[in-house]
Amino acid sequence: MQTLLLKKEEVSKLICMEDVIAAVEEAYRAFNSGQVVQPDYMSIHLPAPRGEIDFKLGYYQVNEMISMKVSSGGFVNNPAEHDVPSGMGTILLFDARSGALSCVMDGSLITGLRTGACGAVSVKALARKDAKRVASIGTGNQARMQIRAIRDVMQIEEIHAWDSSPASLPQYKADIESAYGIPVVMAESARAAVEQADILITTTRGTGSLVQAAWVKPGTHIVAIGTDQRGKQEFEPEIFRNAKVVNDSIAQCTDKGETWHPLDKNIIARQDIHAEIGEILLGKKPGRESDEEITIFDSTGMAIQDNTTAARIYRNALEQRVGTFFPFFER
Amino acid sequence: MQTLLLKKEEVSKLICMEDVIAAVEEAYRAFNSGQVVQPDYMSIHLPAPRGEIDFKLGYYQVNEMISMKVSSGGFVNNPAEHDVPSGMGTILLFDARSGALSCVMDGSLITGLRTGACGAVSVKALARKDAKRVASIGTGNQARMQIRAIRDVMQIEEIHAWDSSPASLPQYKADIESAYGIPVVMAESARAAVEQADILITTTRGTGSLVQAAWVKPGTHIVAIGTDQRGKQEFEPEIFRNAKVVNDSIAQCTDKGETWHPLDKNIIARQDIHAEIGEILLGKKPGRESDEEITIFDSTGMAIQDNTTAARIYRNALEQRVGTFFPFFER
Repeated sequence: MQTLLLKKEEVSKLICMEDVIAAVEEAYRAFNSGQVVQPDYMSIHLPAPRGEIDFKLGYYQVNEMISMKVSSGGFVNNPAEHDVPSGMGTILLFDARSGALSCVMDGSLITGLRTGACGAVSVKALARKDAKRVASIGTGNQARMQIRAIRDVMQIEEIHAWDSSPASLPQYKADIESAYGIPVVMAESARAAVEQADILITTTRGTGSLVQAAWVKPGTHIVAIGTDQRGKQEFEPEIFRNAKVVNDSIAQCTDKGETWHPLDKNIIARQDIHAEIGEILLGKKPGRESDEEITIFDSTGMAIQDNTTAARIYRNALEQRVGTFFPFFER
Repeated sequence: MQTLLLKKEEVSKLICMEDVIAAVEEAYRAFNSGQVVQPDYMSIHLPAPRGEIDFKLGYYQVNEMISMKVSSGGFVNNPAEHDVPSGMGTILLFDARSGALSCVMDGSLITGLRTGACGAVSVKALARKDAKRVASIGTGNQARMQIRAIRDVMQIEEIHAWDSSPASLPQYKADIESAYGIPVVMAESARAAVEQADILITTTRGTGSLVQAAWVKPGTHIVAIGTDQRGKQEFEPEIFRNAKVVNDSIAQCTDKGETWHPLDKNIIARQDIHAEIGEILLGKKPGRESDEEITIFDSTGMAIQDNTTAARIYRNALEQRVGTFFPFFER
């Protein structure tokens, strides 16, 4: 009985964005097919300047893998004091047929990758087929990851970017243009960026109505990433009134996603949420039905996305004979 | 940044029962000193003939370690079909100062060890000082572990053992006598064993009133181990009426321990529970107050026991330079 150990650099070579998009699509379909067990996650919150550690558990009955992702974040003094990043991660994979520990892999990359991929999955399901221009509100790592994934599923003609720290814009522009050859316009204001959008991506740590409803033109598809806990907010809740609202998990999004805000303000009711994205992928509910409607995909992230992504990395490692086997016990 | 990996045989050499008893005592004190964060555990239940996998998380603010114990059990076909035991375990230790993964160790042994130690801790706190005879209802692994631990804190003169499978008794007798030189009497009935007891240990998978209240003589200390989930039961609930009832965690024991049964039958009320054992160890509440009273220690097991035990194993490994360092990521 041996357990496969995978380092961060091995993980990064074992999976491409196309695979991650397929894994996230698989996760969404599985979630809406009753093939997933995904308990509420557990957290330990440490006092500042430390952050928190989350433990997310998912069981996928089709691949017979149980995943436990442990991810830390917000330990701001880590680089200076402990010579490690402010956030780290580990993923365990158990064989659900026996309970054996199959794999321990570094998990620093997976959250970013699978979150990036979710925007791309929603673009395929919900954006206009003639969408060309992307607005990016926020220019951090996840903003880049969204572009990396979305360019895999559509031709992006132009990106209009804005950030509450304008100083970050030139580096974002330089990075995106050199990596993907997509021209980036540094917007004067959030409004100027949003008004250009066929697809609007928000990846900030915002806590208020950053994007006003009136700025969003008909036909826009919105990928709302930033809000994954109470207290965070990126949109004026009014935007939800006449939009087609899609969640990754209605239970999660109504509890702590962007969707919580319009519910809290009675702008929409729970039954106004059109679908979970897996229902659309499975053909149980329609996606976009006109070129005029505004679609909103609110993503809070699910353990099953980590499961299907990590399982692909593990399978690729076995096939490519990458990694180190370690015998935690001898039989 | 390196993570220490510890195999099962390394773990077994890195800790002695004396250390485990100290670790469990530390855990109980910590729990009742507000130094512990211990969320409800998560479980995945698989369809028979598979079992379940539990995930237990504990943070101890004094050693600044966060432990996650993953333990599987009840996979009855494992030996035949997968060449692994029916239950396995893994423990992760994170440095709460940075969130870094400090250690991954095999966790097959820790649950048995720390559960064994809890009986010994309760004997120190609650048994008569002149206690000599132990009755063991149940003769499996945990029954042996209880003896291994209790003999560390008192002189056992004689053990009266009984099991619902009488065929297991001769092996138990042979094992205990050769390991510890303590004479074992194979009792004709549960009653015959219980009537001899100064200390009564129950470690069965029972689901009914195995031990009758009338059999238990005044002054007995009871270590109730077997019942750790709804549906399990070892005692006639009447025994709780005039006993001094001590729990490891009142929240857990009243929810799924032996203590649930007399509460359910209105034989005792919640306020009749004398103490959590940590309160006694800390001197906040008295332990045994007379040679006549019957004391009951109901143990359901807490994540913080895994934490303090695993942390000692980790510290011992560093001191003794045992184990394998693995770089999950390069800084």
